Amino acid sequence: MTRPTSISGFPEWQPSQRMVEQDILDRLRSTFELYGFAPLETRAVEPLDQLLRKGETSKEVYVLRRLQAEASSEDDALGLHFDLTVPFARFVLEHAGRLTFPFRRYQIQKVWRGERPQEGRYREFLQADIDIVDRDTLPFHYEVEIPLVIGDALGALPIPPVRIQVNNRKLCEGFYRGLGLEDPEAALRAVDKLDKIGPGGVADLLMTTAGASQAQAKACLALAEISAPDASFADAVAALGVSDPLLDEGLAELVRVVEAAREHTPGLLVADLRIARGLDYYTGTVYETLMLGYEKYGSICSGGRYDNLATAGADRFPGVGISIGVSRMLGLLFGAGALAASRQVPTCVLVAVPNEDSRPECERIAASLRGRGIATEVAPSAQKYGKQIRFAERRGIPYVWFLDAGQVRDIRSGEQVDADATSWTPPADDLRPRILGAS
Amino acid sequence: MTRPTSISGFPEWQPSQRMVEQDILDRLRSTFELYGFAPLETRAVEPLDQLLRKGETSKEVYVLRRLQAEASSEDDALGLHFDLTVPFARFVLEHAGRLTFPFRRYQIQKVWRGERPQEGRYREFLQADIDIVDRDTLPFHYEVEIPLVIGDALGALPIPPVRIQVNNRKLCEGFYRGLGLEDPEAALRAVDKLDKIGPGGVADLLMTTAGASQAQAKACLALAEISAPDASFADAVAALGVSDPLLDEGLAELVRVVEAAREHTPGLLVADLRIARGLDYYTGTVYETLMLGYEKYGSICSGGRYDNLATAGADRFPGVGISIGVSRMLGLLFGAGALAASRQVPTCVLVAVPNEDSRPECERIAASLRGRGIATEVAPSAQKYGKQIRFAERRGIPYVWFLDAGQVRDIRSGEQVDADATSWTPPADDLRPRILGAS
Repeated sequence: MTRPTSISGFPEWQPSQRMVEQDILDRLRSTFELYGFAPLETRAVEPLDQLLRKGETSKEVYVLRRLQAEASSEDDALGLHFDLTVPFARFVLEHAGRLTFPFRRYQIQKVWRGERPQEGRYREFLQADIDIVDRDTLPFHYEVEIPLVIGDALGALPIPPVRIQVNNRKLCEGFYRGLGLEDPEAALRAVDKLDKIGPGGVADLLMTTAGASQAQAKACLALAEISAPDASFADAVAALGVSDPLLDEGLAELVRVVEAAREHTPGLLVADLRIARGLDYYTGTVYETLMLGYEKYGSICSGGRYDNLATAGADRFPGVGISIGVSRMLGLLFGAGALAASRQVPTCVLVAVPNEDSRPECERIAASLRGRGIATEVAPSAQKYGKQIRFAERRGIPYVWFLDAGQVRDIRSGEQVDADATSWTPPADDLRPRILGAS
Repeated sequence: MTRPTSISGFPEWQPSQRMVEQDILDRLRSTFELYGFAPLETRAVEPLDQLLRKGETSKEVYVLRRLQAEASSEDDALGLHFDLTVPFARFVLEHAGRLTFPFRRYQIQKVWRGERPQEGRYREFLQADIDIVDRDTLPFHYEVEIPLVIGDALGALPIPPVRIQVNNRKLCEGFYRGLGLEDPEAALRAVDKLDKIGPGGVADLLMTTAGASQAQAKACLALAEISAPDASFADAVAALGVSDPLLDEGLAELVRVVEAAREHTPGLLVADLRIARGLDYYTGTVYETLMLGYEKYGSICSGGRYDNLATAGADRFPGVGISIGVSRMLGLLFGAGALAASRQVPTCVLVAVPNEDSRPECERIAASLRGRGIATEVAPSAQKYGKQIRFAERRGIPYVWFLDAGQVRDIRSGEQVDADATSWTPPADDLRPRILGAS
């Protein structure tokens, strides 16, 4: 075999980075479960026609073919899922009869998109999603709850603080209607491009694609400029002088989200009326999340309320959900050297081997330590002790056990003490690799 | 959307089953880490030419194509990995310069094979692998260690007891050579079919494909019949009167494996000289594992020593590893009703909502309980208490909290007590869903 190379867009972490990732996934799981979300894992594939229901994502899909298969029709072709929302909606429809509603689930899985790779944008990446769906109607209060869960979940991670930016589709759509625009979705899509093309570009788009006059375009941009960490945004909207029942409904909802978050975690959430979320299935609150210091890389956690994603015949399951871009977040932090593990291996103790005949006795020491939850390796060979200690050092293993002396050495300080494998315990801080990051 | 259906070979567990699976993966991780294995996760794809290096697996591979891609050459085509050994070998070669050897890693991931689905055989399934590789040479004692790790790992799971069947390629190859057979690999492949085609069929195969005489075929079958839980198998082999240096080496190695396991976990391991493992990359000890009561479904955990899997130019990384078929094991146990969670959701407490105005107060109760590690949901709506209690009952949530009364009820016993959200704690056994299985 020639030496293999990496594949662009398919990131792989080193084992010590994977330890960090696992720690982060454990903490996310723990928070999600504290809120009563049940775990779900769906198959990696969906029928291609399901994946292509939204035309704009079609270019991203990886299609599967069995190498030895006869040329198969597109009808039963399978593709890799490109998010976790579409498979979740499918799962809910498929198992509606045996699920109990409202159904809260979290789902942490890889997804695949055949996009051009960029920094923080991958072709294979890990997402952590939570969603709540109900049958027929979904109470609004779940739109309030979702950012609180995310605030707790991300707040428990060793990452920089985050800010959740929230808006409400009803607010925007109502405002556009109240302004007299007839195609509010086109207006939304135009405003969604604000970061990319700037106010001038958006104004042009509003006029060419959403039928806006110059004054209407100006009002849309004025709305998008409103941002506040509290309910004061509602006054700023009122000052624009547009009135519409849907606008009022959206304003009232957004006030509830902002005020609840302010009580729960001050500083977590900001009403930001430029947040649009391009995908057109959102119908209420929408969320994006910036990691402070990494704002230029965009949102690391996004979602919203959707009413029409899971429907089959008369069955309708409205929901609200949000998705953490785990690979994206970790890629940025690893790249910045802002997140690492304190050692390369889980091992806490290396049992040095004086000679190969003593290996079984060394294994008994190791078994005794493991039996009390202390991760232990036995040295690979009976080299000179200096070399065995260097073996531990290179991996960051903090302790080396010496069978003959009946002692254990902290190789960082050099301190060596008498020890009994049935009772010796390392300081709690040394038991597992520590995660070194923010907070 | 029409109601979606399942896809044959792509199993999906219900959320309560996924809780069981996660519990099992957590326990496996914990045992692997106690032995100092570091975690690794590789990308799901490998270059197709890498996956096809072994011709016999070519029919199983799923090839990927971007839906909008130009017709691409086969050279840079990607396929989904069909096991975790090939990607691991590739990872070792790719990162040899930055890894420290011997390198111990575990890897728990989905793999994909385009095979015809059967009971316990899937197209997408989860494997949990451990491997130890070293540069140039790998000490034999790791072949002794691997089954002890697996014994501890599977022994910590709520599954039926397992029996690891062990053999040694050197023993078989040496025996066949000592017998005078010139193509020991062909003999090995013939004996590997014993379960499928019986002794008569194997004898025929040995004569037609391995050039064996009737007497030689008989001796091969006599060797395959030997099985013992201790070193006595060596006497049985000696009684067959074949001698060869490689046979002696294999016998000595297998004795060490069997005796070490007998000390570590009596009854765990049996020397079974019919175990061949069809794949031809094994070069020393080979392992298969039966779950007692489920023997007819075959091995749930297999592996062995390999010397030539990871080589590039002059670099050579011999290894030993084993793979637990997690989906297979769980599929069998779920199918038999032998493994389940005590409730459908992680939730321990449901806070009943007396009226919607009280919801913020209910959320504060929930936040207080969550802050102390108690998974809590707030009821979806202010229905009559009877309906809210039934909501909890249907999910198996054991406790319902009543804000007005300042009390919590165990809805299984009906017992209701005064409770303060800042101090009340459920019995430890109720905190998380329990896993109901064997042991």
